[in-house]
Amino acid sequence: MKVLDGKNLSNIIKVEIKEVVDKRLSLGMKQPHLAAILVGNDGASLTYVGSKVRSCKQVGFVSTLIQLKDSVTEKDLLLEIKKLNEDKSVDGYIVQLPLPKHINENRVLQAIDPEKDVDGFHPTNFGRMALELPTFIPATPFGIMEIIKRYNITTSGKNCLVIGRSNIVGRPISVLMSQKGPYGNATVTVAHSKTKNINELTLKADIIISALGIPEFLKKEMVKIDVIIIDVGITRVIDNTNPKGYVIKGDVDFKNVSKKASYITPVPGGVGPMTISMLLKNTLLACQRKD
Amino acid sequence: MKVLDGKNLSNIIKVEIKEVVDKRLSLGMKQPHLAAILVGNDGASLTYVGSKVRSCKQVGFVSTLIQLKDSVTEKDLLLEIKKLNEDKSVDGYIVQLPLPKHINENRVLQAIDPEKDVDGFHPTNFGRMALELPTFIPATPFGIMEIIKRYNITTSGKNCLVIGRSNIVGRPISVLMSQKGPYGNATVTVAHSKTKNINELTLKADIIISALGIPEFLKKEMVKIDVIIIDVGITRVIDNTNPKGYVIKGDVDFKNVSKKASYITPVPGGVGPMTISMLLKNTLLACQRKD
Repeated sequence: MKVLDGKNLSNIIKVEIKEVVDKRLSLGMKQPHLAAILVGNDGASLTYVGSKVRSCKQVGFVSTLIQLKDSVTEKDLLLEIKKLNEDKSVDGYIVQLPLPKHINENRVLQAIDPEKDVDGFHPTNFGRMALELPTFIPATPFGIMEIIKRYNITTSGKNCLVIGRSNIVGRPISVLMSQKGPYGNATVTVAHSKTKNINELTLKADIIISALGIPEFLKKEMVKIDVIIIDVGITRVIDNTNPKGYVIKGDVDFKNVSKKASYITPVPGGVGPMTISMLLKNTLLACQRKD
Repeated sequence: MKVLDGKNLSNIIKVEIKEVVDKRLSLGMKQPHLAAILVGNDGASLTYVGSKVRSCKQVGFVSTLIQLKDSVTEKDLLLEIKKLNEDKSVDGYIVQLPLPKHINENRVLQAIDPEKDVDGFHPTNFGRMALELPTFIPATPFGIMEIIKRYNITTSGKNCLVIGRSNIVGRPISVLMSQKGPYGNATVTVAHSKTKNINELTLKADIIISALGIPEFLKKEMVKIDVIIIDVGITRVIDNTNPKGYVIKGDVDFKNVSKKASYITPVPGGVGPMTISMLLKNTLLACQRKD
């Protein structure tokens, strides 16, 4: 069994990005610039955005954080987006989700210039991904593909089960895994809440990518020997023995499943840390496109 | 066994569209207008475009056919597209594929205004489909979904195997079949040229949608009893006993598989005739969006 160490890989990618940025600066080229819009004071959102800003510093990007009140109108938020679309110094930006309920999330995401949409949530970028055109791949599926690539995992002809059909993980990773290419070409099945024979599917799968959000859902009886496990689940489970009062659990019973798996991502330290690196990678790409 | 009669269904849909158009005209509303660009003199393309123009007449649409020489430059083709984008009388238009080799098909398809892209090939429309936003669904997958809907076939929780991962059939139908909704929610597997265990997959499938292009590939030994078969294959096979010198064959050995299937589309007369009706439906939709 080999642990797919997303934390370490994420650090390697950050070092690689920093090298590219340092070279750009030494050549007098533009410094990459990521902006983020944060609406309100949600604790988790503050943590995520804070972490993104810190990561920008690590790799030598400029970062701008635009904080708006929870009460901001959709119109005013759309005005901020318009400004960022027009601001030539900004290469890419994100709008941290979720947004307050009085704001239409779809309308906001569609207002982002696809050329600056480094989260890859705009329909045009989703379509470009599906049609195998240059695009920004959303950070989580991009991170999963990068883990598979860096660990040189064979995927062609393998049965890959994706559990979950969300727009930001399940759907895009199912498309990417079944596309042509050295780390695609898998025979992909998408399971979801209406799937009836999940145990039968997990037992047949050579690769399982789980983005379900049910802690320790996947047990060792449900998988075959040498399965490859990518665990996208991140759920806080109350644990009073932990100083924080909770522990982070993935979708997979790591302790037991890891005994049967050939490769497995831990939670935390697997897919999670990869997402920020891939956001940085998309921002660098957005900057390079304009060279 | 019940034959899914796409020819008859297509005629019913045309009558329904004509009723809507007649009502529009009686109310003094805009008459729907479909335009088509045809480059060169390819026999099959002439037939398809001719059939689309005739169908427009049947349902009371205005139609415009723009014929360009095989030698047209990409620049001049893009100018025609720009004109159609700006022409307010045109609700939707298509560029008949394939295009001559000196023209970049992707560049052309991406130049079409997504609001007029009634073939649904623009990345923005593909992304909107995947993200469950209002869009134009490409005619073939749209036609398949319409057959499933009109025959009230239960799909939720069923194992659906899609054979083929093309941008115009396999990929979009795999997304549509696994989305939420009364005629989605299937557990979908996408098989393709790199799939190793195709017989195992076909034997497990409750619904098989085949878009492979290999005549009579799917045999009765490969399917289970009561399987639902949607055959998207259309291949000309030489047959000197036929006055045309060929016959049209689907991907499915209809004669034998139909004995085991609960529902099956014939070829010809199944999915094929539906595509033109769905193109007309998209054009009507484009017109109605501007009301």
